[in-house]
Amino acid sequence: MSRGKGEFALIEWIRRRAPRPRGVVIGIGDDAAAMDVRGDRLCLLSTDMMLDGTHFDLKQCTPRQVGRKAMATNLSDIAAMGCVPTVAVVSLGLPGRADMKFAKELNRGMHEMAAEFGVAIVGGDITSGKGPLAISVAILGRDAGLKPLRRSGAKVGDAIMVTGTLGGSILGKHLDFTPRVREALILNRRFKLHAMIDISDGLAADLNHICEESRVAATLYADRIPISDAARRLARKTGKTPLAHALSDGEDYELLFTLSQREARRLMARNPLGVPVSHIGRIHAGRGMWLADKHGKRARLAPMGYEHFK
Amino acid sequence: MSRGKGEFALIEWIRRRAPRPRGVVIGIGDDAAAMDVRGDRLCLLSTDMMLDGTHFDLKQCTPRQVGRKAMATNLSDIAAMGCVPTVAVVSLGLPGRADMKFAKELNRGMHEMAAEFGVAIVGGDITSGKGPLAISVAILGRDAGLKPLRRSGAKVGDAIMVTGTLGGSILGKHLDFTPRVREALILNRRFKLHAMIDISDGLAADLNHICEESRVAATLYADRIPISDAARRLARKTGKTPLAHALSDGEDYELLFTLSQREARRLMARNPLGVPVSHIGRIHAGRGMWLADKHGKRARLAPMGYEHFK
Repeated sequence: MSRGKGEFALIEWIRRRAPRPRGVVIGIGDDAAAMDVRGDRLCLLSTDMMLDGTHFDLKQCTPRQVGRKAMATNLSDIAAMGCVPTVAVVSLGLPGRADMKFAKELNRGMHEMAAEFGVAIVGGDITSGKGPLAISVAILGRDAGLKPLRRSGAKVGDAIMVTGTLGGSILGKHLDFTPRVREALILNRRFKLHAMIDISDGLAADLNHICEESRVAATLYADRIPISDAARRLARKTGKTPLAHALSDGEDYELLFTLSQREARRLMARNPLGVPVSHIGRIHAGRGMWLADKHGKRARLAPMGYEHFK
Repeated sequence: MSRGKGEFALIEWIRRRAPRPRGVVIGIGDDAAAMDVRGDRLCLLSTDMMLDGTHFDLKQCTPRQVGRKAMATNLSDIAAMGCVPTVAVVSLGLPGRADMKFAKELNRGMHEMAAEFGVAIVGGDITSGKGPLAISVAILGRDAGLKPLRRSGAKVGDAIMVTGTLGGSILGKHLDFTPRVREALILNRRFKLHAMIDISDGLAADLNHICEESRVAATLYADRIPISDAARRLARKTGKTPLAHALSDGEDYELLFTLSQREARRLMARNPLGVPVSHIGRIHAGRGMWLADKHGKRARLAPMGYEHFK
């Protein structure tokens, strides 16, 4: 794409700071990056778009935080496949008022987050326009000999499990979460998982994705859903219950997965993840989702992702 | 990322229409796509960001044209490496007022352009915000046994060549160009090229990229630069010369490449590309760029890309 002197200077600045990890044959500064994939079986690819005013608010957070989040959501996508993230490219649509300092801080955040997981930024595009900041990351991953964990693999009888605690991420976690890359790899290496997704749309919405893709139904146990402190704090303001927040709030970026009851017991007996895991429900035959209370009484559960697009 | 019902419906619509070509193990509808790369040597990766008001104007073009352009610029990036584009992912930041029809037309344009070059759209992200349309494509390519053509390979004594005609793309070509994927592959297969780039920033700016990366100097022959009819038409309005437009206008998406004088003669003697090629200059030792008139008189040539970012 066409760009001006400021953008060239910024690209040079980024390039000088970019490490060239093993496997990267061509890095920043050409028409495309090139990675050595000899010996690999699969190349995974995902992308996310984030907009100021929709996914973050630059009046209330720093460009570094935005950079971290943009990279972290992509790392989370590869984690959700149980695979190893390798390299990323970054597209920036900067607001006209953005200066070099802003762009550098944004880049610093992306780079820090990527480096925490051994991921290199190998290219991208920088332009500017009249709108608010738009930031899109595309990330590659490799299977590293593992089977990618799809949304479609859930089996009747499976346990439903989730990492961490849920709800209220808008109070801060959405800008400051740790993508579950390490946890996902431990899960995929040591346990026989059937399906996995990261919780971006919300527990109910993302469980619905697993159910739809796997052509199964699910029941969640209301009293076992790990409700975050943030969900409780938020509930005091909204008048909704903490459970409602845990079920429907987006952007927790925890791992939601299914596996046999036996594997679930093995995981619960000795959790090697370093973060809590909860056994929150089960997969059964049919279609739809239910929420069961501790007396076993069931109510229909709707997929309640929140709405951007009309 | 979080998204609403409209976005899910749109993703479903796109998914039903998406072909699943050979090599795509996981397509649209999971956290990441997965491609079989067994037998490949290199995986190429590039991305571009396009913004309404900067790279196109939705008041003056259709969403389908925008979709075509967003995909074509990425195809052009892989072409510039002399490699084979394979799959793409698409990130859309839709304006709040966008409806399903708009999004479908945008997708139709991207899909058509991708399909013309055997490329499948295997995933992406759709969200909406308060700003103008932001569209980012990331594309993968494979080397197919060829050596990627870098900007850094130009050698002293090389001929500089270019496909097509240059300048005035703002009058229409920037929305309607054919990415030189086929031509690039013919060049890389049949000729020993040293360096290649696609002209997105403008002839002088992109030649400067080759010179900087290759640590060489260049002289262009003013009377051999293929000036487009659009450059002549535009010059009547701007008061600049047609040559100035051919040298500095961006977004021609032609191929600019260097090769030995002998290889250049072989290409000129029997051009197999189906589009014109012109021998427009030579690479020499030193730094900087010059423009020579037909009498051999030389003037310094500045890299005149146009400016988005301050």
